[in-house]
Amino acid sequence: MSSPKSNKPKIVNGPGGYILQDVPHLIDYLPDLPTYPNPLQDNPAYSVAVAEQYFVDSDDSVPEKIVVHKDGPRGIHFRRAGPRQKVYFDSDEVHACIVTCGGLCPGLNTVIREIVSSLSCMYGVNRILGIDGGYRGFYAKNTIPLDSKVVNDIHKRGGTILGTSRGGHDTAKIVDSIQDRGINQVYIIGGDGTQRGASVIFEEIRRRGLKVAVVGIPKTIDDDIPVIDRSFGFDTAVEEAQRAINAAHVEAESNENGIGFVKLMGRYSGFIAMYATLASRDVDCCLIPESPFYLEGEGGLLEFIERRLKENGHMVIVLAEGAGQELMSKSMESNALEDASGNKLLKDVGLWLSQSIKDHFKKNKMEMNLKYIDPTYMIRAVPSNASDNVYCSLLAQSAVHGAMAGYTGYTSGLVNGRQTYIPYYRITEKQNHVVITDRMWARLLSSTNQPSFLGPKDIPEEKKELPVTPLPDGEKCDAVVDIPPVTKEVTK
Amino acid sequence: MSSPKSNKPKIVNGPGGYILQDVPHLIDYLPDLPTYPNPLQDNPAYSVAVAEQYFVDSDDSVPEKIVVHKDGPRGIHFRRAGPRQKVYFDSDEVHACIVTCGGLCPGLNTVIREIVSSLSCMYGVNRILGIDGGYRGFYAKNTIPLDSKVVNDIHKRGGTILGTSRGGHDTAKIVDSIQDRGINQVYIIGGDGTQRGASVIFEEIRRRGLKVAVVGIPKTIDDDIPVIDRSFGFDTAVEEAQRAINAAHVEAESNENGIGFVKLMGRYSGFIAMYATLASRDVDCCLIPESPFYLEGEGGLLEFIERRLKENGHMVIVLAEGAGQELMSKSMESNALEDASGNKLLKDVGLWLSQSIKDHFKKNKMEMNLKYIDPTYMIRAVPSNASDNVYCSLLAQSAVHGAMAGYTGYTSGLVNGRQTYIPYYRITEKQNHVVITDRMWARLLSSTNQPSFLGPKDIPEEKKELPVTPLPDGEKCDAVVDIPPVTKEVTK
Amino acid sequence: MSSPKSNKPKIVNGPGGYILQDVPHLIDYLPDLPTYPNPLQDNPAYSVAVAEQYFVDSDDSVPEKIVVHKDGPRGIHFRRAGPRQKVYFDSDEVHACIVTCGGLCPGLNTVIREIVSSLSCMYGVNRILGIDGGYRGFYAKNTIPLDSKVVNDIHKRGGTILGTSRGGHDTAKIVDSIQDRGINQVYIIGGDGTQRGASVIFEEIRRRGLKVAVVGIPKTIDDDIPVIDRSFGFDTAVEEAQRAINAAHVEAESNENGIGFVKLMGRYSGFIAMYATLASRDVDCCLIPESPFYLEGEGGLLEFIERRLKENGHMVIVLAEGAGQELMSKSMESNALEDASGNKLLKDVGLWLSQSIKDHFKKNKMEMNLKYIDPTYMIRAVPSNASDNVYCSLLAQSAVHGAMAGYTGYTSGLVNGRQTYIPYYRITEKQNHVVITDRMWARLLSSTNQPSFLGPKDIPEEKKELPVTPLPDGEKCDAVVDIPPVTKEVTK
Amino acid sequence: MSSPKSNKPKIVNGPGGYILQDVPHLIDYLPDLPTYPNPLQDNPAYSVAVAEQYFVDSDDSVPEKIVVHKDGPRGIHFRRAGPRQKVYFDSDEVHACIVTCGGLCPGLNTVIREIVSSLSCMYGVNRILGIDGGYRGFYAKNTIPLDSKVVNDIHKRGGTILGTSRGGHDTAKIVDSIQDRGINQVYIIGGDGTQRGASVIFEEIRRRGLKVAVVGIPKTIDDDIPVIDRSFGFDTAVEEAQRAINAAHVEAESNENGIGFVKLMGRYSGFIAMYATLASRDVDCCLIPESPFYLEGEGGLLEFIERRLKENGHMVIVLAEGAGQELMSKSMESNALEDASGNKLLKDVGLWLSQSIKDHFKKNKMEMNLKYIDPTYMIRAVPSNASDNVYCSLLAQSAVHGAMAGYTGYTSGLVNGRQTYIPYYRITEKQNHVVITDRMWARLLSSTNQPSFLGPKDIPEEKKELPVTPLPDGEKCDAVVDIPPVTKEVTK
Repeated sequence: MSSPKSNKPKIVNGPGGYILQDVPHLIDYLPDLPTYPNPLQDNPAYSVAVAEQYFVDSDDSVPEKIVVHKDGPRGIHFRRAGPRQKVYFDSDEVHACIVTCGGLCPGLNTVIREIVSSLSCMYGVNRILGIDGGYRGFYAKNTIPLDSKVVNDIHKRGGTILGTSRGGHDTAKIVDSIQDRGINQVYIIGGDGTQRGASVIFEEIRRRGLKVAVVGIPKTIDDDIPVIDRSFGFDTAVEEAQRAINAAHVEAESNENGIGFVKLMGRYSGFIAMYATLASRDVDCCLIPESPFYLEGEGGLLEFIERRLKENGHMVIVLAEGAGQELMSKSMESNALEDASGNKLLKDVGLWLSQSIKDHFKKNKMEMNLKYIDPTYMIRAVPSNASDNVYCSLLAQSAVHGAMAGYTGYTSGLVNGRQTYIPYYRITEKQNHVVITDRMWARLLSSTNQPSFLGPKDIPEEKKELPVTPLPDGEKCDAVVDIPPVTKEVTK
Repeated sequence: MSSPKSNKPKIVNGPGGYILQDVPHLIDYLPDLPTYPNPLQDNPAYSVAVAEQYFVDSDDSVPEKIVVHKDGPRGIHFRRAGPRQKVYFDSDEVHACIVTCGGLCPGLNTVIREIVSSLSCMYGVNRILGIDGGYRGFYAKNTIPLDSKVVNDIHKRGGTILGTSRGGHDTAKIVDSIQDRGINQVYIIGGDGTQRGASVIFEEIRRRGLKVAVVGIPKTIDDDIPVIDRSFGFDTAVEEAQRAINAAHVEAESNENGIGFVKLMGRYSGFIAMYATLASRDVDCCLIPESPFYLEGEGGLLEFIERRLKENGHMVIVLAEGAGQELMSKSMESNALEDASGNKLLKDVGLWLSQSIKDHFKKNKMEMNLKYIDPTYMIRAVPSNASDNVYCSLLAQSAVHGAMAGYTGYTSGLVNGRQTYIPYYRITEKQNHVVITDRMWARLLSSTNQPSFLGPKDIPEEKKELPVTPLPDGEKCDAVVDIPPVTKEVTK
Repeated sequence: MSSPKSNKPKIVNGPGGYILQDVPHLIDYLPDLPTYPNPLQDNPAYSVAVAEQYFVDSDDSVPEKIVVHKDGPRGIHFRRAGPRQKVYFDSDEVHACIVTCGGLCPGLNTVIREIVSSLSCMYGVNRILGIDGGYRGFYAKNTIPLDSKVVNDIHKRGGTILGTSRGGHDTAKIVDSIQDRGINQVYIIGGDGTQRGASVIFEEIRRRGLKVAVVGIPKTIDDDIPVIDRSFGFDTAVEEAQRAINAAHVEAESNENGIGFVKLMGRYSGFIAMYATLASRDVDCCLIPESPFYLEGEGGLLEFIERRLKENGHMVIVLAEGAGQELMSKSMESNALEDASGNKLLKDVGLWLSQSIKDHFKKNKMEMNLKYIDPTYMIRAVPSNASDNVYCSLLAQSAVHGAMAGYTGYTSGLVNGRQTYIPYYRITEKQNHVVITDRMWARLLSSTNQPSFLGPKDIPEEKKELPVTPLPDGEKCDAVVDIPPVTKEVTK
Repeated sequence: MSSPKSNKPKIVNGPGGYILQDVPHLIDYLPDLPTYPNPLQDNPAYSVAVAEQYFVDSDDSVPEKIVVHKDGPRGIHFRRAGPRQKVYFDSDEVHACIVTCGGLCPGLNTVIREIVSSLSCMYGVNRILGIDGGYRGFYAKNTIPLDSKVVNDIHKRGGTILGTSRGGHDTAKIVDSIQDRGINQVYIIGGDGTQRGASVIFEEIRRRGLKVAVVGIPKTIDDDIPVIDRSFGFDTAVEEAQRAINAAHVEAESNENGIGFVKLMGRYSGFIAMYATLASRDVDCCLIPESPFYLEGEGGLLEFIERRLKENGHMVIVLAEGAGQELMSKSMESNALEDASGNKLLKDVGLWLSQSIKDHFKKNKMEMNLKYIDPTYMIRAVPSNASDNVYCSLLAQSAVHGAMAGYTGYTSGLVNGRQTYIPYYRITEKQNHVVITDRMWARLLSSTNQPSFLGPKDIPEEKKELPVTPLPDGEKCDAVVDIPPVTKEVTK
């Protein structure tokens, strides 16, 4: 049996190789908490649904891998999200807060709106605070009182009404502030760094033995958070990126040897670039962090550009901001002068690479017209589209149902099309990457007809780990996996 | 063993209650067909991927239900889509045709483009015909030669470049035409009626013993085709519907007792209305075919409208075109004169219901300003958005991989986020409906705060069958099911 | 000299046939009003501008007709709008109100915003009221206090935050209310009916001898108000109408003998239909109230439709809502039954005409697929585009400058690209119509290649009056005119 | 009398200070050219119009200044554009060519489409060539045959189907090519440099005595061409710029001390920045080339930014690309190292200024979050909106009518809302600039509430020249002018 304050993963094994990676619960360390009937059962909106059908069975789980073999093991599962018949908070007792951290992402306001709306309309909660300006807002700023009226129209605006910032995580101060204010549900919306912060906050709260549910909502416009199908706002971002690619295509086509060059988001993961390329079908070359490339020589990017211009008279390049970073670093080192002076600007790989291409053509006295487009902030700042609006709503509702049901230390996330509760360690242990040896990237290569820019040596060894490239609204290319033996039995 | 021409379902059972509902294969009735190595393995775009990873294992399958219990049975599975290591067509031998049937839907041109593109770029196929104007085009019209140049930009346009029509299905004539022209891959894009047609064509082709793969691609803007996660174009349609709802909201807010009334698509299934309502959050009342309502009296629609106007001063109503049909029929019968004369126009439930509301307020001398918006054709005709573009691409590629691999008599479809091949009978046996007793509809009721308009007697008995409401990008509210015992063993 | 309370037009003649159709001024009937220096001269924003250049010279005027001959007369002029060096209101004294009447139009909120903003930021006015829900709001409702904070974001929303209604004009009650509340600047935004109401209010105020400036701001999405270049929101409406026409075109092209049929606004004037047609270039037939047409027989609409379908396989029809009204009335009379029963619905000429076309093809057993789109409320409810936003701002500023300068009984309007003050009688005496004998309509006919549907007898006699078809952003086709002799000399 | 080959301006004086600045005509140097009746009079589309009304009277002219005084002079006029009753080209004789030069601008394809369409549909011209890739295409490339089918859909795409380039003007080679190919109508679409080129081509053609009409169509997304009301594509550009400003606003609002910084087009003229700012109303500071500013010290930009951040917590800056160039040059000179190394990138004033702001805040240890958006190529590449589509159509038609009527050496342009023919020298003699001492800039200052950043010494002396700031769809702030005495009498 786990100690009340253990932070060991909760894992449940079942027959046929079934593994449940469960999330913590308040009663793990506060075993005597009272329960209450879920107020939803008195809600007229829910009277239509039959209770057994409406409430989630506590045994429901969702598998991580679903492409299976007749005789394969059943593998890792997550706890299904949704309302439970019993809740661990009385409505009047709840004092919730919401914080948004990191960069902007379409849908932030929708998530805020729906957390507020779920708490107040479904569970009758009246005390909800917005934390102003990210983690530091817990201790450095005033809070913003939230109710369903305040948030009524915010989903039609981009950005976050709560403000956001990077960093500012100070566990002790934050938990002090939570304790001082009497907050007992903390909703933390942010990327992997933020979720790691949430994890630490949860540990400290468990250590102090507080009845406070800590809930993460994963936000990453780059879709680089693992396990989940996709992150909110990603769909909107890919849609909005089409404008930039279309413009690049028009510029390229209208000029002699025109190159339309679009830099998109994607510091470590090229998902936006990849899907924007697949959706557009006008792109000739897509460069992402996961797929190394080189400029000079045979099989290099410059040779490819020359060839494509010769064949077609124009081309469109899409670059994820994290691609080619090493190339750039190397190039800059070799030029101390530049490094000293122009460094700050040159850190932008888009500017560096487009300049390198220009230099190459100039040196070789070939005409070329490169138009550089960086739509990053125009993409981040749009309101979420309809699809993301629905997604954000369900995500927020799931988050709230979980907290009310006493779960804590989890991230709400969509897994194989189902809302689940995922333990933090699965979200923070690694990043989600485009797997360049799987089918989705092959599709992209086939669509752009670009070379792979790599020899066999560049194919990462990890591919034997059979990684996963999730596709919004498409197919995940996960292969069937042998589930690693898990021997830790966990009691609850 | 099944007879070569058997049309019995192919079902494979496995341990733990595993059931595979398999699709037919050409070798079911042409057992001696030669095979060829898949030309993709020589494609430079695919050289990066490791073959074992790139090609789909013939044992891969995808479960229909994925919310499970630790000890539950494994349930129904579908064959996973994707390229196979061996194909049953030599590239030069392939003579493919594509036909689009029924109403417009965003994404039709993308699907056409990607079938052509997959056949020609991936498999080196040169002979592809477009059938002009739906099923009847097989025997009544000229065909349209297709290649990757012709289709290059069509995904940026709404509609279908092949033209479409309803009806015109004449099995004998169609199969004669297929045989006469030497066509051996038939791609049929259309709704449930069209898929039934495809099923019959497949049966006739099997009966004649032809080496012709018949592939269905499910098209339904209403998302009323069962089994699959969602249909292509649905996401775009929900997005586009937001414009109409926003306009209705503005009109309603700006007028004394303003009602914005939007009629959306949905002859038998209210999915578009439901998701458009959930995405918008400005809707006060959503009426769908699955949820009966009545006008007069306590608990009726008119009472609700009066109340909402009194409370808020305005309201927005969204109506799926199939909702309230019985009410309208009843109302019309009672007025023979109207029926005889104005019938044609009055068949439109939107016009009828908005008129009924106006009449009610007029009769009661209450001021009311109703603005009626029917954006149907504006929604159907837009080009697909980025998300649907990617989805259509994968769907089309899956369809082509399947035909090349010798599968036939199947519909390509996304199940739990994975591309699969689904036997026709699962697609055509029933329609997908919003289940008004499950959680998604409860969410809607909670979001609009509308009454359910029904007493307990209205709750359909079938709810014990535990039906499924798929959610694009969200969560399916399927409950865990006991798999019905299937005893038919099928050999392959 | 005019009597203080005379409502005779103020007209000033000058050399070379110069005529100024002037607007009333408070000192016409309150000759002893004090003046104040314009507070704008202390505004830092204006310090850059040289006073003589910034303030409008009281002699500035703008000609109505500007296509001239070397030896032609100079013609009618209007007083130029803009800030004056002296104002007739002290800032603290001003108590302004704003009312919006009639149907929605893009830009209403921008006009409201900019009246408020001009009054408060430029002139330091603090007391501004919004009248709720049109004219009747003066006496039947509460008012809405307005300041620059309240209106800050409203220009991004469609509709009117003040609410609107039709009718409700009761001069005595309205002027009583103005007097009771101590309002001394009344801004009335509405169409020709509303402007007539403003004119009557102004007369009553003059009769009572009140120091109240009454200012009209012409609002008509149909652009049917004479004299002015175009009305605000018109540009946005034409833009938005493109969506419907595009959709109609896609539907038409994708179906055998497809007809895309779009009904646009235009009760008496076909400007939106005409410009939307000219902007789109996909339209085959544009029907407007000004150009009669008939259905049956040689040279009729049905014959043209048949011919165009035979030639092209599809067509797009754009209909202004006021077109064909007589035809419809005649057709309905001849069918008493229909008239009795379906009348209410059939009043819509779009539904009637599309049904007539369907009936014709059905009767003649010809296949035809008509898709009917009525985007009216979707067009009216969008926020104004950038161009209309700038236009609304200048219009509102001009209106405010005029009132502050003591002018009253005028409508603010753009004439030949310049802001002017126009006397009410010029705005209300007649409607602006498309002149089917001039060049703009000829351009349209040439663009659609549709027949004129009329014999020489249909050409209105008035064409000898040389009317004007104003074009937003284009050219007015006014011919050179002989100025009618005006003998009334007016002193001020 | 002017010599046949004189290039002196053609000026006609009339009574009341009337001056016509006329354009050349082929008969100026080819006096014996035959004429033909205008084929339009047989066009059924024009049969409705009465000939006298349809054709433009050869005496029609349009005044440059229209704000007048009762006793003021009549001033400069331009020849009115439009079809004439007699033409100087037989339809079969015409061999036209079209060339597009310089950067992209929304509407290029619409202008091309409508020149082709006017020539072929109105005048029955069959031989039309597209010159590929700008001026150099005359002698270095193949031509593109154009007809109404080829151009049918191009107005829905951005860019130019003819391709474009900068420079490449070689008068002799170009005129040789025109002569060799037997081209007799040359349509040149481009900015002021291009129009200067057209002027030189015209002179050479006149010198050689060729019957070739040379027609300019002014293209400048910056709206920096004088005399004309606005340039095509400007309206679309201002509209599209709103997206960037909105995004900047969202980013700024969501971050602590957030600055949204948008760089817009405007090398020498800040019109796009000014109108985009006026339309948006979210901008705190608009910097244009015409209004000098400085960074450091009291009254400088940095002080203003600090103050606005302190007051509001965020701000939006819009910068025209030509603003602050001198500041940047000065700053760079003082840092030779930077100049040598980072120069290429730093030439971009947007990057330089945003970096300077960042450095300032870093140096002063103040937190600040600047997000930089450069939407230039996304704006240039969009298709023209409805308003620009209509405008481009009329512009192209006017251009064609003039050439057919024998006029040459002119630019087609909209003056005070009327299509006119303007002599080249008026277009090329100077650029159109925002006049920072007039009312429109004052309005902007009032709207943003930004300081003027200048002392009295910075106000240019030229303001006494009473310059003009044209406003699209708004008001021109031209003051009344004394017409300079023109004594050159010109005979025709």
